[in-house]
Amino acid sequence: MVDIEEVRKHNTKKDCWVIIHGKAYDVSDFVDEHPGGSAIIVKFAGKDATKAFDPIHPGDTLTKYLATKYHKGEVTEDDEYDDDEDDPPSEQELLRRKMVKKKPDLSQMYNLNDFEFVARHTMEKTAWSYYSSGCDDEITLRENHASYQRVFFKPRVLVDVTNIDLSTTMLGTKVSSPFYITATALGRLGHDDGECVLTRSAAKQDIIQMIPTLASCSFDEIVDAATDKQTQWLQLYVNKDREICENIVRHAEKRGIKGLFITVDAPQLGRREKDMRSKNIEDLSHVQGDDEEADRTQGAARAISSFIDTSLNWKDIKWFRSITKMPIILKGIQTVEDSLLAVEHGVDGIVLSNHGGRQLEFSKPPLEVLIELMPVLRSKGLQDKLEIYLDGGVRRATDVLKAICLGAKGVGIGRPFLYAMSTYGDAGVYKAIQILKDEMIMNMRLLGVTSIDQLNESYVDVRNFQTRYLPEDKLFGKVYEPLVSPAFKL
Amino acid sequence: MVDIEEVRKHNTKKDCWVIIHGKAYDVSDFVDEHPGGSAIIVKFAGKDATKAFDPIHPGDTLTKYLATKYHKGEVTEDDEYDDDEDDPPSEQELLRRKMVKKKPDLSQMYNLNDFEFVARHTMEKTAWSYYSSGCDDEITLRENHASYQRVFFKPRVLVDVTNIDLSTTMLGTKVSSPFYITATALGRLGHDDGECVLTRSAAKQDIIQMIPTLASCSFDEIVDAATDKQTQWLQLYVNKDREICENIVRHAEKRGIKGLFITVDAPQLGRREKDMRSKNIEDLSHVQGDDEEADRTQGAARAISSFIDTSLNWKDIKWFRSITKMPIILKGIQTVEDSLLAVEHGVDGIVLSNHGGRQLEFSKPPLEVLIELMPVLRSKGLQDKLEIYLDGGVRRATDVLKAICLGAKGVGIGRPFLYAMSTYGDAGVYKAIQILKDEMIMNMRLLGVTSIDQLNESYVDVRNFQTRYLPEDKLFGKVYEPLVSPAFKL
Amino acid sequence: MVDIEEVRKHNTKKDCWVIIHGKAYDVSDFVDEHPGGSAIIVKFAGKDATKAFDPIHPGDTLTKYLATKYHKGEVTEDDEYDDDEDDPPSEQELLRRKMVKKKPDLSQMYNLNDFEFVARHTMEKTAWSYYSSGCDDEITLRENHASYQRVFFKPRVLVDVTNIDLSTTMLGTKVSSPFYITATALGRLGHDDGECVLTRSAAKQDIIQMIPTLASCSFDEIVDAATDKQTQWLQLYVNKDREICENIVRHAEKRGIKGLFITVDAPQLGRREKDMRSKNIEDLSHVQGDDEEADRTQGAARAISSFIDTSLNWKDIKWFRSITKMPIILKGIQTVEDSLLAVEHGVDGIVLSNHGGRQLEFSKPPLEVLIELMPVLRSKGLQDKLEIYLDGGVRRATDVLKAICLGAKGVGIGRPFLYAMSTYGDAGVYKAIQILKDEMIMNMRLLGVTSIDQLNESYVDVRNFQTRYLPEDKLFGKVYEPLVSPAFKL
Amino acid sequence: MVDIEEVRKHNTKKDCWVIIHGKAYDVSDFVDEHPGGSAIIVKFAGKDATKAFDPIHPGDTLTKYLATKYHKGEVTEDDEYDDDEDDPPSEQELLRRKMVKKKPDLSQMYNLNDFEFVARHTMEKTAWSYYSSGCDDEITLRENHASYQRVFFKPRVLVDVTNIDLSTTMLGTKVSSPFYITATALGRLGHDDGECVLTRSAAKQDIIQMIPTLASCSFDEIVDAATDKQTQWLQLYVNKDREICENIVRHAEKRGIKGLFITVDAPQLGRREKDMRSKNIEDLSHVQGDDEEADRTQGAARAISSFIDTSLNWKDIKWFRSITKMPIILKGIQTVEDSLLAVEHGVDGIVLSNHGGRQLEFSKPPLEVLIELMPVLRSKGLQDKLEIYLDGGVRRATDVLKAICLGAKGVGIGRPFLYAMSTYGDAGVYKAIQILKDEMIMNMRLLGVTSIDQLNESYVDVRNFQTRYLPEDKLFGKVYEPLVSPAFKL
Repeated sequence: MVDIEEVRKHNTKKDCWVIIHGKAYDVSDFVDEHPGGSAIIVKFAGKDATKAFDPIHPGDTLTKYLATKYHKGEVTEDDEYDDDEDDPPSEQELLRRKMVKKKPDLSQMYNLNDFEFVARHTMEKTAWSYYSSGCDDEITLRENHASYQRVFFKPRVLVDVTNIDLSTTMLGTKVSSPFYITATALGRLGHDDGECVLTRSAAKQDIIQMIPTLASCSFDEIVDAATDKQTQWLQLYVNKDREICENIVRHAEKRGIKGLFITVDAPQLGRREKDMRSKNIEDLSHVQGDDEEADRTQGAARAISSFIDTSLNWKDIKWFRSITKMPIILKGIQTVEDSLLAVEHGVDGIVLSNHGGRQLEFSKPPLEVLIELMPVLRSKGLQDKLEIYLDGGVRRATDVLKAICLGAKGVGIGRPFLYAMSTYGDAGVYKAIQILKDEMIMNMRLLGVTSIDQLNESYVDVRNFQTRYLPEDKLFGKVYEPLVSPAFKL
Repeated sequence: MVDIEEVRKHNTKKDCWVIIHGKAYDVSDFVDEHPGGSAIIVKFAGKDATKAFDPIHPGDTLTKYLATKYHKGEVTEDDEYDDDEDDPPSEQELLRRKMVKKKPDLSQMYNLNDFEFVARHTMEKTAWSYYSSGCDDEITLRENHASYQRVFFKPRVLVDVTNIDLSTTMLGTKVSSPFYITATALGRLGHDDGECVLTRSAAKQDIIQMIPTLASCSFDEIVDAATDKQTQWLQLYVNKDREICENIVRHAEKRGIKGLFITVDAPQLGRREKDMRSKNIEDLSHVQGDDEEADRTQGAARAISSFIDTSLNWKDIKWFRSITKMPIILKGIQTVEDSLLAVEHGVDGIVLSNHGGRQLEFSKPPLEVLIELMPVLRSKGLQDKLEIYLDGGVRRATDVLKAICLGAKGVGIGRPFLYAMSTYGDAGVYKAIQILKDEMIMNMRLLGVTSIDQLNESYVDVRNFQTRYLPEDKLFGKVYEPLVSPAFKL
Repeated sequence: MVDIEEVRKHNTKKDCWVIIHGKAYDVSDFVDEHPGGSAIIVKFAGKDATKAFDPIHPGDTLTKYLATKYHKGEVTEDDEYDDDEDDPPSEQELLRRKMVKKKPDLSQMYNLNDFEFVARHTMEKTAWSYYSSGCDDEITLRENHASYQRVFFKPRVLVDVTNIDLSTTMLGTKVSSPFYITATALGRLGHDDGECVLTRSAAKQDIIQMIPTLASCSFDEIVDAATDKQTQWLQLYVNKDREICENIVRHAEKRGIKGLFITVDAPQLGRREKDMRSKNIEDLSHVQGDDEEADRTQGAARAISSFIDTSLNWKDIKWFRSITKMPIILKGIQTVEDSLLAVEHGVDGIVLSNHGGRQLEFSKPPLEVLIELMPVLRSKGLQDKLEIYLDGGVRRATDVLKAICLGAKGVGIGRPFLYAMSTYGDAGVYKAIQILKDEMIMNMRLLGVTSIDQLNESYVDVRNFQTRYLPEDKLFGKVYEPLVSPAFKL
Repeated sequence: MVDIEEVRKHNTKKDCWVIIHGKAYDVSDFVDEHPGGSAIIVKFAGKDATKAFDPIHPGDTLTKYLATKYHKGEVTEDDEYDDDEDDPPSEQELLRRKMVKKKPDLSQMYNLNDFEFVARHTMEKTAWSYYSSGCDDEITLRENHASYQRVFFKPRVLVDVTNIDLSTTMLGTKVSSPFYITATALGRLGHDDGECVLTRSAAKQDIIQMIPTLASCSFDEIVDAATDKQTQWLQLYVNKDREICENIVRHAEKRGIKGLFITVDAPQLGRREKDMRSKNIEDLSHVQGDDEEADRTQGAARAISSFIDTSLNWKDIKWFRSITKMPIILKGIQTVEDSLLAVEHGVDGIVLSNHGGRQLEFSKPPLEVLIELMPVLRSKGLQDKLEIYLDGGVRRATDVLKAICLGAKGVGIGRPFLYAMSTYGDAGVYKAIQILKDEMIMNMRLLGVTSIDQLNESYVDVRNFQTRYLPEDKLFGKVYEPLVSPAFKL
């Protein structure tokens, strides 16, 4: 039994204890490793952090990532701790709660933008901001979507389009439609059941779910939520500690995961100002005095959590191959050059992705990389050496069709399903997928094709990539929340 | 005599009776064939549907499309049925009625955008939404218009332009001006006399009207409204039942129709969200529970009405040739490739069209297809093998002149005449046509040409199709109603 | 003495008398010739038109254009005529009068946009609309300006730029700066002294004024207002009656005019909807009943006033040469082809112009025609055969410099000087010219050139004409008044 | 002792005395030399100018630039002079003061745009306008920034990016990061300590500061504020009086300055209307009467202050070389041609710059000149003959990285540091630099490079310079204050 007064003393970054579910933990050595940043932990130094911890962490987090020596045991009752809401809700929050009550019926959702619209107005500010934010000025985030608007169709008529077949194969799995639910972190920010909501809808709709490393349900919870016939993939942030890494991979294979997607575009997490601003956390790194200067540079270096290994490089691929038989796919390839290196290193696939515009600002849209890549692969006879996926910016079935026409095996969709989950739960995600499928069928008919394998470059006109003309997308423009300048005080 | 209580029992989609003008009809087998969707019928299952039915259906609809065995006979009096308006009008509707009273005089209409402006503010919401909507994000709808704004003129001066002749020939008919009224559905949504209004104005102005399959006046009513000298064409949605189809075609030829325009861009009707949202109809397809899943896929397939044959293909052209001597024109060609196939199959003409942006989003604007097509046709010596028309996005005489310069025989204009009809009736349509003619004369003078056959590519600069530069069209931008996100509840 | 009651009887278009300064005139035969349209005259049929007539017509109008037989003599007193304002002023007009009182000081005018801004808010609605309007959607009007924004500079440094000389020569006249005041109609709409204001400022600033055919001061008044040393040019609308034409030209030469600018881009006056809407005149041409149809077509033809000869063509140049020794310049050339024809016909110069965007919508901006023209002229060795001017869209000294760099001898500026005149009279126009000159000196220094003849293509980058990129011009965008849709009734 | 009444008599431009800190000065001969324009001095003719003088002039100004003969000695007490604020503050000023009190915490500044946002709302109007203004329509100012948005990255993955080194060398000085604080005038408008604030932050962050000629701290004050190890450069406006010039240069070298940056893009200061309008100074040059015309032309010439020599040219470089051993760099090169001349004249470096868009409107963005220049230099083997810097429009670390990739040795940043200084003083500037450094580290990791010398053209895609596509930068667009039209009176 640890005395609450004792806990209260460890209230600095260097000496930092927190209480979670009545137990104290010394997280001093962990603070800088925290994938969510140190600031949020330090905010609770010497205090009860349960309410902030619970909604986003899997139940096994502390056991898994914090050595037993840091588990300080149960804490005596905390008189000061008030389980009820402490701060009165802000005007903004009160407005949000009203909006939640007036939420439109699910039947009013006609497209994926609609879910985003409702999410923006009904989700808690911090959750919305975490999901929706991109890096820097969010230009990359918007360009990802824009790239699809630049492709026009060349539809063929007078083709018998009575029977349409949307099914295709991804890494050997037969799926009902050429898109999958890609990995996105912290599902429980949007829904109590977190990533499991996505699992259930994926099962019903017969599409693949990619499980994220930073899920807020535990890996096993998500796998348990799946049906026997269901296919899941695993997205992996490579930990500096390769033993942890190996355990994760071997466990995943054992549990039946059918593809290992190694994230390669995030040696350091991007700076997402919309998210930062919503948390209103003091950006501690910059307020140090003169004498802390020496520290600072180090501090910047230390900002790299051991959760993600900055030293990960091409040589590591071999090691991964040695520990698993799962197909290995590199997620986050952004150039033709690295795509060729991927072939050379014998991986089974790549995901052209700039992380949904959350990492490097001005990384080119995946669709544009695809357009450059395919002729190169074909000229070298490599087009069948690996499966090519892409993600980022997909909102309509026409987007999916364009990607397939241009050489992709399938596309990943992330945020739209998060928004559907956060607003209407299981029914929302199910419907979001169904909307895409209905649009797929209609658009394939109108395009004059009846099966996925018929889609090819003759159905698209990509000349706008030369001009970069961008027709206005009014709904997308409306649901997008622009960055704001800092607020003046009241 | 059917008892009203009996009718009331048949109130589900699978067992669906409706009352129209005091008679009951069993439409259970018909619900899924309804071109306007099943939802709107099911809404009236077991009830009197007269008020919803009347404004948009030709008088012969039930006789023509519903087998006699489904005609259940007269119904006993319906005490519950209230012929007066049942729901109190919405705020929006009350505002609209005020606007109707303050409608500007016809003399204030200076261009076709003006009619659209008045229509947007005075038409009933559902009618306006049906007419004005396009598919998906309505990008194609706007691009159709935009394509004209990209063409600049190279006007010649010091030419004697005293006498201007606008007349030309279309499929052998001499007309007063190189544009025609194209086929658009459900004319009675906008005016009690429906398509007959257009017929009368076409006669006075000596231009051609194309009669739509989905007119809300009957075909014969529209033909009867024409003068002896007047030329009409027929637009045809090809019915799965080729006998119905043949009857329609033979009857049309007998009644003096001078051109058969077979629609080829609509094997399935596009998804028009503005229209859907205005009807506020629950999108039933998506609210099914788990056990209905098997059904769903079928459901999606069944969504294809037998009114439009999804299996229609190039081989069918021969059959059409065998049943009629009318010129055959394919409406909805969207590529150079299909234009060449059209020549190969010996049709008399094509309409380059993406259905006014109502079918496949991102189908290229017809004007752009025309620009690609003409050099190909000329290089193969095929330019005189068929007449080329196009429609979609025309608002000014300059648009018409550009299309003719670039190789079109004529252009079809749809929505603008619907708006003129819906706001000012006969006088409106007459004036809309006259505005275009007056603009034509002025612009031909300023261009330095005196007759339609003088127009050619030397008068236009199409280099903006390389850059896709788009000068802002302020009026068009203003009258266009953007899509909205779903409304939160009150 | 004509009885007022007699006059009142002649109150139709076909039998139309009007009273001006107490005298009656039969204008029945003249109505259709009126350059300002028939509607405005018919409005005063049988009534006193003095107040509408005076502000825009030269004193000699009636003597000059109406045969003596139509002069009906003095009229008995008109009891009904009220010399004071009859209608109470509109809300809009009351607001305008307030704005006139709050007009910023002249010293606050920093650029030509500023004059336009003040003019828009202080000029009478009809006057502002007449000056500011363009044809159709005013895209050409805006593109004229935009074309300048597409040219970037390549400024040279480390050049001795102590002494800057702005002077140049136009058609043999030495001028202080390479721009002139171009011809614009109806100067008295903006200022009581009309075009004479411009004459006086041109004298003080030593630049050339082009006198318009449709001036609201008489030609002689404008010439009389000039100093001995001052150079003036004449803009000519060619009258169908070549005798009238010859008289005008010979008289001009006798009075010392140094250049004859024949307008070739206006066989029919353009449709300017902003102007039409401001006048709120019923557009009579469109409200005729069925039985007037035959008439209509004729009517449209008759809309062409004999003031402007629609048959004017290249063969007429020879005749002009035969009646005058003044240099002959064609104003309104819009293509390379016609520029070459101009050389062939031996004229002394051309003005590349689309009439300030008031005639044919989508006529290419003059600057763009210039960029295409110069290489052609040079390749044929014709660059010195004629002087090339251009007008339309100039707002800054940088615009002038760009045009000169690209081959123009000088540029004409119209509307900006009208706005300066209408807001601040003589001082306004003087200052507007001075602003341009001050900007010229500064910009030539910054460009590294000291005299006009040093300007050439090496100082500009015109690659944006390939991309048509258009950086936003915020002031221009703000002062521009967009077209509006028709107003609903109150 | 001068009698105050005597001073009051010298109250015209030609006979102009002013009082500063209780002493009278005859500035009649100096008025036209004043770099800030004559108007502001004439405003105080015969009056006490201390309050206007103090905030922007170094303490040694009068001694340095006004010959002793013009020092008229102490003035008797001025009863009329009121040391307190005379005019009641405007509404705008009162609002500003409120905003100052509600200023967000420094911790809320996430990027350089945020400082600009706070500056715009909290700085005194005249100070803000002086700093933020550009020439003419500020298109060049915005294009400078836009040019960076056109470059996309080609990031490489699977590179070990654990250790990132931002350091580089500039003109022989090792610096912590490849950007420097460039010279900007009148630092004390924004902060009482003026340029010394920048000096101190530069020291702490180990980056170079360029000292401006028109600093409002004296040169020696700024050098004194530096640490021993700190490197400073000098920006020089070349004075007509070469003796003054030589003194400045020799003194700078003696005081340890490590680079002489000669400004070559400002033979005359640009016209900055935002600045002019904020001062609300009557633009005297334009209100002269007729008889002053002769004067006017001279006046325009005289507007050139002797502070900046308009005759400065390439031959002068040799003389500079003869009086100093400091590296000589030409600041304001805007073309490939002049870059080559710079190499020819043996200077040590150039700064590609259009003076932050404050001089010639439509001068091309420096980044674009760089892109054209490097291939030319390389093809001639000259790429190592000089160091290339550029400035203008930099707001993010990605901008810096792009410039380095494309061949720059470093980039200068001006306004953002002024805004940081004006809003949060030393801590603000320190943080602004730190933000850039943190972004640099993150972005280099995400780009797959670990040191500055690895950056090269293979990491960027500059094809948007062909299309000039510009993705919307929402924050920049929001913090930018557009020019306004003149205000109507109250």
